[in-house]
Amino acid sequence: MKASSDMTPTTEKAHSSTDAHIFLLARRPLIEERLGQLVPAETTEPTSVHRAMRWSLFAGGKRFRPTLVLAVGEIFNAKIETLLSTACAFEMIHTYSLIHDDLPSMDDDDLRRGRPTCHIQFGEAVAILAGDALQTLAFQTIAEDDCLDEGVRVRVIIETARAAGTPAGMVAGQSFDLAAESRVIKGEELELIHRYKTGAMITAAARCGAIIGGADEAQLNHVSAYAERLGLLFQITDDLLDVTASVEDLGKTPGKDARAQKATYPALYGLEATRERAQSVYHEACTALDHIEQSTHLLRAIACAVLERRA
Amino acid sequence: MKASSDMTPTTEKAHSSTDAHIFLLARRPLIEERLGQLVPAETTEPTSVHRAMRWSLFAGGKRFRPTLVLAVGEIFNAKIETLLSTACAFEMIHTYSLIHDDLPSMDDDDLRRGRPTCHIQFGEAVAILAGDALQTLAFQTIAEDDCLDEGVRVRVIIETARAAGTPAGMVAGQSFDLAAESRVIKGEELELIHRYKTGAMITAAARCGAIIGGADEAQLNHVSAYAERLGLLFQITDDLLDVTASVEDLGKTPGKDARAQKATYPALYGLEATRERAQSVYHEACTALDHIEQSTHLLRAIACAVLERRA
Repeated sequence: MKASSDMTPTTEKAHSSTDAHIFLLARRPLIEERLGQLVPAETTEPTSVHRAMRWSLFAGGKRFRPTLVLAVGEIFNAKIETLLSTACAFEMIHTYSLIHDDLPSMDDDDLRRGRPTCHIQFGEAVAILAGDALQTLAFQTIAEDDCLDEGVRVRVIIETARAAGTPAGMVAGQSFDLAAESRVIKGEELELIHRYKTGAMITAAARCGAIIGGADEAQLNHVSAYAERLGLLFQITDDLLDVTASVEDLGKTPGKDARAQKATYPALYGLEATRERAQSVYHEACTALDHIEQSTHLLRAIACAVLERRA
Repeated sequence: MKASSDMTPTTEKAHSSTDAHIFLLARRPLIEERLGQLVPAETTEPTSVHRAMRWSLFAGGKRFRPTLVLAVGEIFNAKIETLLSTACAFEMIHTYSLIHDDLPSMDDDDLRRGRPTCHIQFGEAVAILAGDALQTLAFQTIAEDDCLDEGVRVRVIIETARAAGTPAGMVAGQSFDLAAESRVIKGEELELIHRYKTGAMITAAARCGAIIGGADEAQLNHVSAYAERLGLLFQITDDLLDVTASVEDLGKTPGKDARAQKATYPALYGLEATRERAQSVYHEACTALDHIEQSTHLLRAIACAVLERRA
């Protein structure tokens, strides 16, 4: 189960990726159940906003960020109960960002995960409010989590907020992404957009799992290095899927980014070089884990699952 | 300076209201300075989002909520330094809500405080992101405020989030308000909308000031009772101003709510009965303060200033 075993051929990787899927299958019902408890019921007023929040939260998302909180936390021996609310907070912020990004004035998407987007289903006003309320609920959820010491809650809120906002978080990334749509950008700029738009929250999810598990500063740095590569890998494979996957696999129209002339890795580097880049980023993620004493098999398996994902 | 002195004729009230204005004049530069430090500079990337955040934050707002944090906190002997960041967080959340409420799909306002609204100036996408980032920054600001014990930070974040979100906070109120636009509503429903839409955050601002000042549960309850009446008074006088003030006073088109057939107190009860209601709500606010040992002169003066406000 040491680092080197994940540097080896595809059969070994297939084994790893299976372990990640098993972990996801085992943890996902717990995440969904807790999310269901944390978000007000559809029958609670204002019903339109709560229905919209749940429409987008329970739309078949992969739960990648909450899974990462759980996986990293468990590696540092945190009890799952101490991780679940923070994990759900990450999913709430991710979902709020999807709702707002899909709006007509932003990416103008009608379809996500095979279903109408929030504003198509509930109207723009309700969608904006549902996104706003999900962000609020995320911070409330962490602050109210009495499984955690107050000092840990504060640290987790700071990590989450910095990764979600500006100048170096998700909102900054979405802003750069929108600004880049109308012009040709280079590879470095594309990487910066992704690092902010999706990478920051993925890194924060991993760090918060480690913080709850009591990781020290050195361990936190290694977790960050792993998660930064994982976030980049996630984005590269996302771009690859946009080119290669079918509409059934994705639940959205493939090739949309390419047609919209959005900068993607395949558009910039070509398909083959992008696949090679994915491989090398995967290995960099695994290398970062070599410095961690604890068994990191699960985190390698997750990186492998991202490398090999088909949706 | 005891309670009874505020129940007396207009000359006494005029004196009180002057004290509130003096307090505001003295504290306002401190609030503005701290806000300026907390929000990224206009030259920091993404510049469009940071310019939009500052456009709306520094638009001549009354700083009512942060002032209330400071006034209540100081009554309980909190040092101003321990109150300022929380005060600014309330202004950030208030400003984010104004930016989103002004959007075309919401209240569709082009003008606020005599200037183009955020989406008119910067476009809808940037306005949505600026609102999102301001909400994030509010929670980050409280979490990072090392003047406060971590336990206090957690309590302040919980109060703020509950008041900002759903089911009983600002977002719920905005949702009810939008839903009420298309039909005739009664007085009780109007009061509920205001209690959620503006009252909850005003009450939370007062409570957070008291929490930082170390108020006990009984004191907190009296502060809440005062602030709930103050919030209601604020809304009633807002409705009155919409009918009676000039465009120069308001910085927006007066009578807009009435023309939009929005439910207002004057529309429901008539001008004279609304003025009487304002008077009695003012007295109820002062009565709630009778139970607090500390000198509450400043809080009475603030209520008086709201009763007599001209803009």
